[in-house]
Amino acid sequence: MRIEDMVLVSVDDHVVEPPGMFERHLPEKWHEVAPRLVRRDDGTEVWLYEGKELPNIGLNAVAGRPPEEYGLEPTSLDEMREGCWDIHQRVRDMDANGVVGSMCFPSFPQLCGQLFARSKDKDAGLAVLKAYNDWHIDEWCGSYPGRFIPLGLPPLWDPQAMADEVRRVAAKGCHAVSFSENPEKLKFPSFHSDHWDPFWTACSDEGTIVALHIGSSSQLVVTASDAPIDVLLSLQPVNILQAAADLLWSPVLRKFPDLKFSLSEGGIGWIPYFHDRMDWTYERQSPWTGQDFGGRLPSQVFREQVVVCFIDDPAGMKLRHDVGIDRITWEVDYPHSDSTWPTSPERLWKSLDGVPDDEIDKITHLNAMRHFRFDPFAHRLREQCTVEALRAQAADVDVALRSRGVRADRKTKASDLTKRP
Amino acid sequence: MRIEDMVLVSVDDHVVEPPGMFERHLPEKWHEVAPRLVRRDDGTEVWLYEGKELPNIGLNAVAGRPPEEYGLEPTSLDEMREGCWDIHQRVRDMDANGVVGSMCFPSFPQLCGQLFARSKDKDAGLAVLKAYNDWHIDEWCGSYPGRFIPLGLPPLWDPQAMADEVRRVAAKGCHAVSFSENPEKLKFPSFHSDHWDPFWTACSDEGTIVALHIGSSSQLVVTASDAPIDVLLSLQPVNILQAAADLLWSPVLRKFPDLKFSLSEGGIGWIPYFHDRMDWTYERQSPWTGQDFGGRLPSQVFREQVVVCFIDDPAGMKLRHDVGIDRITWEVDYPHSDSTWPTSPERLWKSLDGVPDDEIDKITHLNAMRHFRFDPFAHRLREQCTVEALRAQAADVDVALRSRGVRADRKTKASDLTKRP
Repeated sequence: MRIEDMVLVSVDDHVVEPPGMFERHLPEKWHEVAPRLVRRDDGTEVWLYEGKELPNIGLNAVAGRPPEEYGLEPTSLDEMREGCWDIHQRVRDMDANGVVGSMCFPSFPQLCGQLFARSKDKDAGLAVLKAYNDWHIDEWCGSYPGRFIPLGLPPLWDPQAMADEVRRVAAKGCHAVSFSENPEKLKFPSFHSDHWDPFWTACSDEGTIVALHIGSSSQLVVTASDAPIDVLLSLQPVNILQAAADLLWSPVLRKFPDLKFSLSEGGIGWIPYFHDRMDWTYERQSPWTGQDFGGRLPSQVFREQVVVCFIDDPAGMKLRHDVGIDRITWEVDYPHSDSTWPTSPERLWKSLDGVPDDEIDKITHLNAMRHFRFDPFAHRLREQCTVEALRAQAADVDVALRSRGVRADRKTKASDLTKRP
Repeated sequence: MRIEDMVLVSVDDHVVEPPGMFERHLPEKWHEVAPRLVRRDDGTEVWLYEGKELPNIGLNAVAGRPPEEYGLEPTSLDEMREGCWDIHQRVRDMDANGVVGSMCFPSFPQLCGQLFARSKDKDAGLAVLKAYNDWHIDEWCGSYPGRFIPLGLPPLWDPQAMADEVRRVAAKGCHAVSFSENPEKLKFPSFHSDHWDPFWTACSDEGTIVALHIGSSSQLVVTASDAPIDVLLSLQPVNILQAAADLLWSPVLRKFPDLKFSLSEGGIGWIPYFHDRMDWTYERQSPWTGQDFGGRLPSQVFREQVVVCFIDDPAGMKLRHDVGIDRITWEVDYPHSDSTWPTSPERLWKSLDGVPDDEIDKITHLNAMRHFRFDPFAHRLREQCTVEALRAQAADVDVALRSRGVRADRKTKASDLTKRP
């Protein structure tokens, strides 16, 4: 296999929502409450919902900007590359990066729709959330069939409504749903209660995978109040490592053996150690803690029901068979600051040095297709899905870095980011 | 090499302090304030200091007990194996386990002496802390020359006094000092301030390694209020992973290039991924965050100045060269619940399958000897330090599990443990 022959599916990217997105999807009676994108006096744009302002954090929309300009301050659409928010430009950016498929997490509603869960008027909140899902599925993903894995947002405040929404969007072909990596941090019950059982049941029934994205508890790891932002950025995967243990020791996986989870942006190099550590704890401590995995090891349950993904991960590639070759997926993270766009194939290819072709296929697309029920080949021939074929049709896309200036109020402390609403 | 030929040095064990320990080491004028071990009506024993009770947590003194009896409730000396608190029995337990050298962290003063830092009378606190160090160095370690790596406790509330104490105990041959893995959690300045510079300077001057033990911020990872204790137990290394990043992005290592740290009970299997992640963050984010490692990578600085250790770590052994073969040390964790006593050699030997002899020697003792400035061979011939030789002289030690009953008030929730004072 050559680098040009890879078929790439990314299971973690992000959409920056465009203005007017609710117009076609929200019933007339709710038009008044629809979130609106407004421009502030300082030139930034924010979404306005129930009187609250939701900024787009600069660091989350930096594709195509020089790294010197990254920052935590709010930003506006015209400071971003169009592919952040325009579906047609997004597909061209995917082509230029040789990526055939992408799953996009939301921006202003937060990673699993926390914003809507804070709605004062829960009926309005549910209407807006459904309109969001319809826009995401029908308009964003629907504009280019076979190019996007749709991802639903759940109405977190009502497990039965969550189940209903999972079933409603599944009927439209959406088989992935975002959820919080630690619901207790959002003031909901934890994984350890049976509160979420209607939701888990619906996901299990519908073959819908539950995606836990780092930061979806609205909390990031801040070691110290004066820690530089590098600590927070580099420790983001810790968020998911903790969630993985929390989930594994909870009743969820054992109670719903057909339910699958995906750990988004969590990396994979820590997983062999995680397996060892979980099994070690089980072996030594279960006689008094009472945990029972019914003749299996915690790592076996984790392997079978939890899908993982990486951006660039040399240690994880070395130990890929300990991670589990049938559960590793890959991501681009466009347009966030960790993204490898527009040279994702080149970066990935370096990591894949020495990996056999059949394993490359699993890692780059086959695992994602199976676990997320996504089939780009139903829409275009496989040979039209390769890095080479996609890049050929995007030869005119300008991927050069483009400066858009730096604001005076740049913020670089971890505590700046966590003060976000 | 056979299993019997290994020479084993453990850099993380624990002493449960015996009654009367302060008598010989505290000046007359402070005898009134010395911590005392007292028996409570419920049969447990606690240390009493400035009117506060400090229990011995059962889980921290379980060597030789059946795992079914482990628990979080307080315990008493007569419920423990004598080796927990009696130096002569401790050495016999080391012999029975084939271990020639051991570094012991404190129990009731907490891992880096947090208790003494809470002293209302700081003069008394300093006197008690010095007496503790003298007892530890002269009596606990001094009873068996060549068998223990002494470990000092620092008076955390005064960086100049810390420096003085580091120099005082270094003159007595103690070249390791315990410190908090996150001082801000103890309401002191973080690694990112220059507050600790006198302490770092003294350690650097004296060739004293700074040991950061998991839990030395008096905080453990609790994901959710109803999480079972297994989550907390299995996530203990996360504590140290966060501390490692916090330290690495702080000025400390770069400002004091001769200063060495040891991550105690942190495991090693996560370290190759950690290296990748830190370098990735540096490469992508430093243009705007301003971090500068002067032509080196963060992982290089981390490798050179931070020593790591493990109990049993298959993933870490597979990637030992990515971890760094000259910085890996090993631990028994006697008498805590994670300890492999009395079959540590057997457990370790399994992990070492396929590792060449010269690397085994580094991992089992040579690295520990160099980084902790410890030389058992100055006191006995090398051939008397092997697993075989030590076990031969302890053939009469009964290592069978012994039941000591279970209390009615057993506690198994993570939140039970963190409610500790």
